[in-house]
Amino acid sequence: MLPDRAFFDLLADAARKETLPRFRVGADVVNKEAGGFDPVTEGDRAAEAAIRVLIERHFPEHGILGEEHGSVGLDREYVWVIDPIDGTRAFISGVPVWGTLIGLYRNGEAVMGLVDQPFTGERYFADGNVSRYAGPDGGKVLSTRPCNGLSDAIMFTTSPHLFTESRKTRFEAVQDKVRLFRYGVDCYAYALLAAGHVDLVVECGLKPYDVGGLIPVIEQAGGIITAWDGGPAEMGGEIIAAGSRKVYDEAMALLRA
Amino acid sequence: MLPDRAFFDLLADAARKETLPRFRVGADVVNKEAGGFDPVTEGDRAAEAAIRVLIERHFPEHGILGEEHGSVGLDREYVWVIDPIDGTRAFISGVPVWGTLIGLYRNGEAVMGLVDQPFTGERYFADGNVSRYAGPDGGKVLSTRPCNGLSDAIMFTTSPHLFTESRKTRFEAVQDKVRLFRYGVDCYAYALLAAGHVDLVVECGLKPYDVGGLIPVIEQAGGIITAWDGGPAEMGGEIIAAGSRKVYDEAMALLRA
Repeated sequence: MLPDRAFFDLLADAARKETLPRFRVGADVVNKEAGGFDPVTEGDRAAEAAIRVLIERHFPEHGILGEEHGSVGLDREYVWVIDPIDGTRAFISGVPVWGTLIGLYRNGEAVMGLVDQPFTGERYFADGNVSRYAGPDGGKVLSTRPCNGLSDAIMFTTSPHLFTESRKTRFEAVQDKVRLFRYGVDCYAYALLAAGHVDLVVECGLKPYDVGGLIPVIEQAGGIITAWDGGPAEMGGEIIAAGSRKVYDEAMALLRA
Repeated sequence: MLPDRAFFDLLADAARKETLPRFRVGADVVNKEAGGFDPVTEGDRAAEAAIRVLIERHFPEHGILGEEHGSVGLDREYVWVIDPIDGTRAFISGVPVWGTLIGLYRNGEAVMGLVDQPFTGERYFADGNVSRYAGPDGGKVLSTRPCNGLSDAIMFTTSPHLFTESRKTRFEAVQDKVRLFRYGVDCYAYALLAAGHVDLVVECGLKPYDVGGLIPVIEQAGGIITAWDGGPAEMGGEIIAAGSRKVYDEAMALLRA
């Protein structure tokens, strides 16, 4: 039996209970870090533990790949891929663009996924066929935006400083062509792409848990997400996500060059 | 008679009615821009018009400096300084870090101010003595964070590409010294500084309406905001905001060099 929306919601709600109370705790952050533990690390670990308990209880036959507590049964048919707090720097800085990412892989392919932003109350969920949004402004079926090419596109990346030398040149070739680019939005950029607000995300150095929950949300909203070499995004690395084929093709021509 | 909190709330609520329904309208944005008008421009103009009507009715003796509809009576004792949507690029991209900024100057000095983020439901308000926050996680009196220096500091700037040559060198000298830096948060960065989540914002090319509403929120939370030459921030230009004197002094030594 496959998990349903209610089970994903259960996982996201359990994570939220651990993350949100540790968000914006204020002046103590700096001192706590000096002492070893800090709120974001505590929140990361506690949220992942809460998610894993529920998965192990309801789907003991599934594997789990988590950021904080390691891997179990990665050769099983179904594997959960979890990032309890994606965007730790945003979390530390008080900016509500971090998220909890929960993906379900079947034989290595991401088939269901969820992105949750607890502070704004936004949740993006792909059930295997359709991506849906629920938030303070209501709910809707998600659809990426038809965009005719890079010259019309809005692009995001978390930081230009994350690209190493040859990657930086290719990234900047794309950046030079777009209508508008912005930095600093982590997983939230992919959610906005699925919702049709932006057109392109280009990043590198991602781990599987940085993308596992996002892939189904993007693909089931009509978008494309792959590695820069055109291969699957499921294992992370150099990632491109686009809302339309035209934007994807134009960007890929520059990233592959 | 000076305006009170209720009057500032009235202004922010009137602006919110014009901005929020135009946020994340989706796929139409690109096409509408091609036709001339776009949601953010419409929202900017309608929100400022709504604010000005209320000011003119309740405080006809005050002057107004707005982004969209020009200036009236800038030589009067009290002048309102309004940016209906600060962070238009964030607004266009669907990221809820734009804000409505409303400041009140007395003889050229910012004495009261408000920052409103309608999507997250956050409001930061300085009443002349104290800065307060109200949001989805409750309300509190704002206080900047004691931070011992740049090596402990989190810094924000909207984009590193906004600094022209000699400014860029000085900005990067500061960026190289901080613990963590992030891009892309517009007015929201200053609100987070007032709330004690981050320690430093360094920017240039700001207009008076980009800072007028922010200055009282920062100062009345215990922070410091000036031009890079140490002069008043009220007219915009090159701006530094810091949560503590130590961070301010260290950053200023590099910005002035």
